[in-house]
Amino acid sequence: MGSINEIKASELNTDAFINEKAQEISDAVGDGLAINALSGGVDSSAVTMLGHRALGDRLKTYFIDNGIMREGEPQRIAELFKQLGVHVEILDGRKAFFSALKGLTDPEEKREAITQTFYKDIFGKLVKDSGAKYLLQGTILTDVDETIAGIKRQHNVFEQLGIDPEQAFGYQIIEPLVQLRKDGVRKLAEALGLPEEIYNRPPFPGPALAARVIGAVTEDKISVVRTATSIVEEELSSLGAFQYMAILHEDRVTGMRDGKRDFGSQIELRCWDSIDAREAKPTQVPYEILYKLANRIVDTVPGVVSVTYNVTCKPPSCMEAI
Amino acid sequence: MGSINEIKASELNTDAFINEKAQEISDAVGDGLAINALSGGVDSSAVTMLGHRALGDRLKTYFIDNGIMREGEPQRIAELFKQLGVHVEILDGRKAFFSALKGLTDPEEKREAITQTFYKDIFGKLVKDSGAKYLLQGTILTDVDETIAGIKRQHNVFEQLGIDPEQAFGYQIIEPLVQLRKDGVRKLAEALGLPEEIYNRPPFPGPALAARVIGAVTEDKISVVRTATSIVEEELSSLGAFQYMAILHEDRVTGMRDGKRDFGSQIELRCWDSIDAREAKPTQVPYEILYKLANRIVDTVPGVVSVTYNVTCKPPSCMEAI
Repeated sequence: MGSINEIKASELNTDAFINEKAQEISDAVGDGLAINALSGGVDSSAVTMLGHRALGDRLKTYFIDNGIMREGEPQRIAELFKQLGVHVEILDGRKAFFSALKGLTDPEEKREAITQTFYKDIFGKLVKDSGAKYLLQGTILTDVDETIAGIKRQHNVFEQLGIDPEQAFGYQIIEPLVQLRKDGVRKLAEALGLPEEIYNRPPFPGPALAARVIGAVTEDKISVVRTATSIVEEELSSLGAFQYMAILHEDRVTGMRDGKRDFGSQIELRCWDSIDAREAKPTQVPYEILYKLANRIVDTVPGVVSVTYNVTCKPPSCMEAI
Repeated sequence: MGSINEIKASELNTDAFINEKAQEISDAVGDGLAINALSGGVDSSAVTMLGHRALGDRLKTYFIDNGIMREGEPQRIAELFKQLGVHVEILDGRKAFFSALKGLTDPEEKREAITQTFYKDIFGKLVKDSGAKYLLQGTILTDVDETIAGIKRQHNVFEQLGIDPEQAFGYQIIEPLVQLRKDGVRKLAEALGLPEEIYNRPPFPGPALAARVIGAVTEDKISVVRTATSIVEEELSSLGAFQYMAILHEDRVTGMRDGKRDFGSQIELRCWDSIDAREAKPTQVPYEILYKLANRIVDTVPGVVSVTYNVTCKPPSCMEAI
């Protein structure tokens, strides 16, 4: 692939784009089989719809339950796509992911462990078993930019890093969204008939809740950050922010509970205003909402005594913590 | 000492209180010598003035430079008291403190190391050399409450913990402010002729900037948190908050600098509205000030890529992080 021609959201003709990409997918796959992984985010949801337009039942869509997703996510997303006529198969990969993550604290090593488990252990095996030679994937231009710049290794960018997925994993990757940024994908997802809860959904990182745990990832910590995430999504969804999240820190701070010292954990909240994720500013969340959020979290989430709100702009901050 | 009779700020007759306490100090010390350590906070400043009223030159006041103070603090405070007619001797204790703190990460162990270095190594020696048998100290009622409750071990509360300072350190402790809370001490400090920058000064913890570093304390980390503290005090002093601070975390987060990934540190800001430190609420700092503060910190403070603002009420949070 040479340099990528960006298509700005304002210039995106969704009908023409859908027809063109469906044709390209159809031409590439021929009468073979393709496979894709749906996470429920807007990118992979748009790719799933686009792929099913192009290939119908010859696209096999899997939802990999890696154990580091939001509460009830696999079942909810499968049900939603069922109503759109798309069958999604849920695969339980929890053991493989937690065992790969065990003891890792470096963010890049954690991302790498998730990538390897996803593509090699789980997806590689799936593709071999299915006979599919093609993997459809929701890489967008911002992922490519950030990987090339060395800011963050996205889980789905291989070519730019000089990795041949066919050689490494046994299949070819098709990335129909790679000319778009997030705002373009949202417009496309709406045109593809996805409901607003998907096309306006805040981005969720590739490494999912594992990206929201500082230090080593365990099932307990994922459970803590999952509960905090539910609360944050409930309290902040009405603000129309680009993305919002809860991050569990490893550092501990002093709190007090029932009049006694309680040395506990801290949850960091982030909520971003952004158009396309390249630059972002912390949303001016009303203080009454922040107080309420903090109270709910310290009351509900085991071991948490303190809640902060990130007030740094991107750059130099990133949207995710790791 | 039995139970302590609290004197509320609203009930405090400062003239009567000053006369009564000066008399008590004078009676206790007789024609001997007393000694006290001035940190520049409102409590130790009020005690210094009260002690000099009672004892004149027979109170020796020292400022221990422990290396974990604000920028330029020792010289500034000595100069301020000079103008009030009180001679303050600065003692360089930096080596002793950093060597005692080396490698300690547990908050209680850090506090204990600072206490031991202060009272035993530095003050114990000073008292012996001076022949003084009495130490004047600015313990207030909130310190006693929190120590008894086991929330936080204050550096200056011995009797409540069953420690006899005469036996342990070779001197007796006089605590003239122990019936007051912070608001009462401020009223007293004003009545004692201290300038507003002292009587309205935000509280500063006993372990100073070492309480603002999560994990092991080093000179480099103290320098980082000292620079951040200067910026925070500049930007927040006009808000009239009870206390405000910068805390350096040990956890690292991903940022970007010059288009490249920068895995760096996070500074947590806290700014409290409170009457007497028993309960506190995060000040509703205008977002434009928070953005400006975050920008100044990530631009100026080496290695810092991210800034958060604490939004948890006390309780269950504490005002300080460790």
